[in-house]
Amino acid sequence: MHTSIATVSLSGPLTEKLTAASRAGFDGVEIFENDLLASPLSPEEVRARCADLGLAVDLYQPMRDIEAVPDEVFARNLRRARHKFELMRRLGADTVLVCSSVSPDALDDDALAAEQLSRLADLAAEFGIRVAYEALAWGRHISTYDHAWRVVEAAGHPALGTCLDSFHILSRGSDPKGIEDIPGEKIFFLQLADAPLLAMDVLQWSRHYRCFPGQGGFDLPGLLTHVLRTGYSGPLSLEVFNDVFRQADAGPTAVDAHRSLLLLQEAVGVAELPAPVVPTGVAFAELLTPDAEPVTALLGALGFTRAARHRGKPVDLWQRGTARVLVNTGPAARRAGTRLTAIGLESPDPAGAARRAEDLLAPVLPRRRAPEDVPLDAVAAPDGTELFFCATGHPGLPDWRADFEDLAEAADPVCRIDHLALAQPWHHFDEATLFHRSVLGLHAQESVDLADPYGLLRSRAVTNADGSVRIALAVGAAPGDDTVHAAHIALAVDDVVAAARAFRAAGGRLLPVPANYHDDLAARYEFADGELETYRDLGILYDREAGGAFRHCYTETVGRVFFELVQRDPGYQGYGAVNAPVRLAAQHAVRGFTGG
Amino acid sequence: MHTSIATVSLSGPLTEKLTAASRAGFDGVEIFENDLLASPLSPEEVRARCADLGLAVDLYQPMRDIEAVPDEVFARNLRRARHKFELMRRLGADTVLVCSSVSPDALDDDALAAEQLSRLADLAAEFGIRVAYEALAWGRHISTYDHAWRVVEAAGHPALGTCLDSFHILSRGSDPKGIEDIPGEKIFFLQLADAPLLAMDVLQWSRHYRCFPGQGGFDLPGLLTHVLRTGYSGPLSLEVFNDVFRQADAGPTAVDAHRSLLLLQEAVGVAELPAPVVPTGVAFAELLTPDAEPVTALLGALGFTRAARHRGKPVDLWQRGTARVLVNTGPAARRAGTRLTAIGLESPDPAGAARRAEDLLAPVLPRRRAPEDVPLDAVAAPDGTELFFCATGHPGLPDWRADFEDLAEAADPVCRIDHLALAQPWHHFDEATLFHRSVLGLHAQESVDLADPYGLLRSRAVTNADGSVRIALAVGAAPGDDTVHAAHIALAVDDVVAAARAFRAAGGRLLPVPANYHDDLAARYEFADGELETYRDLGILYDREAGGAFRHCYTETVGRVFFELVQRDPGYQGYGAVNAPVRLAAQHAVRGFTGG
Repeated sequence: MHTSIATVSLSGPLTEKLTAASRAGFDGVEIFENDLLASPLSPEEVRARCADLGLAVDLYQPMRDIEAVPDEVFARNLRRARHKFELMRRLGADTVLVCSSVSPDALDDDALAAEQLSRLADLAAEFGIRVAYEALAWGRHISTYDHAWRVVEAAGHPALGTCLDSFHILSRGSDPKGIEDIPGEKIFFLQLADAPLLAMDVLQWSRHYRCFPGQGGFDLPGLLTHVLRTGYSGPLSLEVFNDVFRQADAGPTAVDAHRSLLLLQEAVGVAELPAPVVPTGVAFAELLTPDAEPVTALLGALGFTRAARHRGKPVDLWQRGTARVLVNTGPAARRAGTRLTAIGLESPDPAGAARRAEDLLAPVLPRRRAPEDVPLDAVAAPDGTELFFCATGHPGLPDWRADFEDLAEAADPVCRIDHLALAQPWHHFDEATLFHRSVLGLHAQESVDLADPYGLLRSRAVTNADGSVRIALAVGAAPGDDTVHAAHIALAVDDVVAAARAFRAAGGRLLPVPANYHDDLAARYEFADGELETYRDLGILYDREAGGAFRHCYTETVGRVFFELVQRDPGYQGYGAVNAPVRLAAQHAVRGFTGG
Repeated sequence: MHTSIATVSLSGPLTEKLTAASRAGFDGVEIFENDLLASPLSPEEVRARCADLGLAVDLYQPMRDIEAVPDEVFARNLRRARHKFELMRRLGADTVLVCSSVSPDALDDDALAAEQLSRLADLAAEFGIRVAYEALAWGRHISTYDHAWRVVEAAGHPALGTCLDSFHILSRGSDPKGIEDIPGEKIFFLQLADAPLLAMDVLQWSRHYRCFPGQGGFDLPGLLTHVLRTGYSGPLSLEVFNDVFRQADAGPTAVDAHRSLLLLQEAVGVAELPAPVVPTGVAFAELLTPDAEPVTALLGALGFTRAARHRGKPVDLWQRGTARVLVNTGPAARRAGTRLTAIGLESPDPAGAARRAEDLLAPVLPRRRAPEDVPLDAVAAPDGTELFFCATGHPGLPDWRADFEDLAEAADPVCRIDHLALAQPWHHFDEATLFHRSVLGLHAQESVDLADPYGLLRSRAVTNADGSVRIALAVGAAPGDDTVHAAHIALAVDDVVAAARAFRAAGGRLLPVPANYHDDLAARYEFADGELETYRDLGILYDREAGGAFRHCYTETVGRVFFELVQRDPGYQGYGAVNAPVRLAAQHAVRGFTGG
């Protein structure tokens, strides 16, 4: 379907918005009036810019407080409308959005509203323009889509139709099934926005918290299904007001926006995309570092051995059990110190996984870095992390380890990567979740707030069905916090006490945890003799839920990465979020553990 | 009264919070449990630190999900409570907060709740501890203060009382008059928080949007009056959860917090402060600049003449009508380029104004900068702007101009400072408003959102009764935006067209406004022949409200300052906020006009 986005959904001056929409693959735009007013370009120039960019001007919006008013007011409104229609002709826009009136002057008189909208449509028709009438959720007398449609139907004018906006419909709890009673050709436009389910004033909710389809809590596939059953064949357009998007770079926002429309079309069966290939495990995590020594000292103390070396690049493979960490001292490392830059995901169909990612607008990375390398399918996640779709010892698929020369027989105590925690750029938390869900086919767990001494963090994990892939996405409370929090690699062990002791015996430093924390554990739980003392000694944190217990401790931080040792009971599904404030405060307190 | 603040209201580790509370003049603190758990200090060490800082440990909080549960659960809860009471003994805290249960295990049984709270109080009494029971607004069965009090009354235990929290009472719309039915000695604690009036889920509202008294919309003086009528003589304590305060520096936040409690006590008549001395005009605005040339060129084009020079410092007085601008090229200027650093406010009692400011914790600036200077009463506003309380030609008061040597007879076309617009640091918008309202006795107008191309700004003006002092406080949407927006000086003229033409003729550059804006004005209003073309030519913006019209235009920006020319009809009370998105976009578009 033809896709469109309202300029108000993106940040920057009008031309920046148009460029971003075009680059992201949109077919058209809704021009938001204030964006035009603030632009130094004439309407003709905007039209030409859109044409150059391959964008249709699908809608001009909004026209407000038009209908159901006394005659003399309506005469003034028509005068104003004539100006706008002249402007739209210059702009090349053939549809105008009219929002139901919020004016105290408006009368509760549907017949008058229909008659005046009909007269407005008469005038519009002279300019070859169609009027799309929409019920605002907070409209004074007309606030539901079915009411707006009854008025449009009563007017019976060929240049007058309705505009449906998912926010206005779903925020009021209206049943979208009634949409099917509207003839598709009378639905002139469809605006889509999702939103988190908040109990708040609907006007504030609308103005500040809308988000792209799939990022919120609305059933947009359900709504779109009803719309399509009417025969509607107009644009799918995004109209999203959001305080964060207003500040975010328009380019990535437009890509996220377009991805969300592709997914919506897939969900209702009007677009076909390669099916998700859910990863079946974590093949490796890759650290880029300018100085391998601190990282490899840490890995050594954690029981990793250097198992292999890349044939052509300064990359070593460190391994303990099935936990594999690549240490890359390539030239890009100097920029930002030690970072987690790539994740290898076990995939039963690496090429298929990459195809889906590419079709969903993820940047594809070169398949080979050097001619002699095994071809690897890889894309960049929204936060820049490289995701490799690969196979480890899978018959019929090339093994990514073929590029490596064995150095040592790996000692194999039981150990695997339990989860990876990635710090997300401030603006792109919901986008990151949607990406991991939709592109990788992972399931998103509940979002949680974590109190850091200097602000709230939000964290949300995505997992596959058996929990063999778990990625925790975390974001700071404000821009600038991006750099405060390091990524980490959590290693699952059978016995965290033994693992922590071995780490310490090998010279590793564990994050010290305040005694008050363990005193509190004593108040909350009963432990076997000596158990709590052991935890206290090693800095092991503890959580319990119905499914079982979770014991975990943290290493020092190197650059922007640290490790966690976890012992997870099979039924425990969390990540010890209850302990996060203590861990974060401890990391702030001990300078050597914060990285920065 | 004894003042206190919950550690959760301030950011940073526990010791940073304690230091900030002490410096701001609080008498005590509520220790929030998670702050203690995350602290490397033992309870004894925290106690000693508080004693060093002169802080009482007024409360330990919270204890949750204690009451109205089956016997075996209550036995576990008592065990947990014993741990906490031991901890409190080490901490030197003699009152514990118990919140009404939110547990699904809790039974709707007031008698059982009373009996178990009584048993808890028995145990507490062994430790010399008092239990303050509070109704959470979202408590499972007990969610109103009167209900919590009935349970406490039924228990009839001397170590059990109630805790009142203004948020939980006022957010539910409970009538606080019923507080007077509680004997004061049974109110063990009083927690105060204000909040903006938001229609949203009360738990989210509580956790993220609380603010200090006077910064929100609650009638806290009314509530406190009811509490005091009971004979309550315990602490006034602030318990505020707020996403912004979590990130803000604890020091200034604690000062703002304490100021709000002083004002609250003044409002209910239990503390006496020097009365506000409302300023009666703007004596001057002072610009600090490393290079006087661009600023004075701009002032010259605006019709200012250099009227006088300071006897001892590199400060010139520029004047047009009663608008006076000091241009200071002193040594501090090099740091940050041209900035608006000080405001002179006409005061009928400069010393009294400064006394009130000082009693309300505003830093007082040295009265004389040099021995020969006229003594000036001055304080720093929260954003660092220096506020001078002074008199211009007022019989019986020293004239601040006595330090200046006349250079020229000022030509006197009618001109005065209409308003000053100041960019506020991101974290301190509500505090700035409260400061200007309470310290200066100005009236705060409604807060408005302004759309900048890269984010939403919030703006709120404070004024005196006749509008001769107007200060518009604006804040960006996020940290870092502090530096995006310049301060400005708006000059009121009788004829903005003539003033703009004269400015241009003198070589001044006016901010160009997009033609689309004026096309839109044509659709919205009817103008006399040629009027709109004049506005278009000069970049004059237009607004109209019931009280009259407002015409305004902007100069180029020098450093971090620009000027506005305004022609204000007497009945117009605004600042052309409707035009702000166009102005902001134009300033972004024309590099020379943005300053940065």
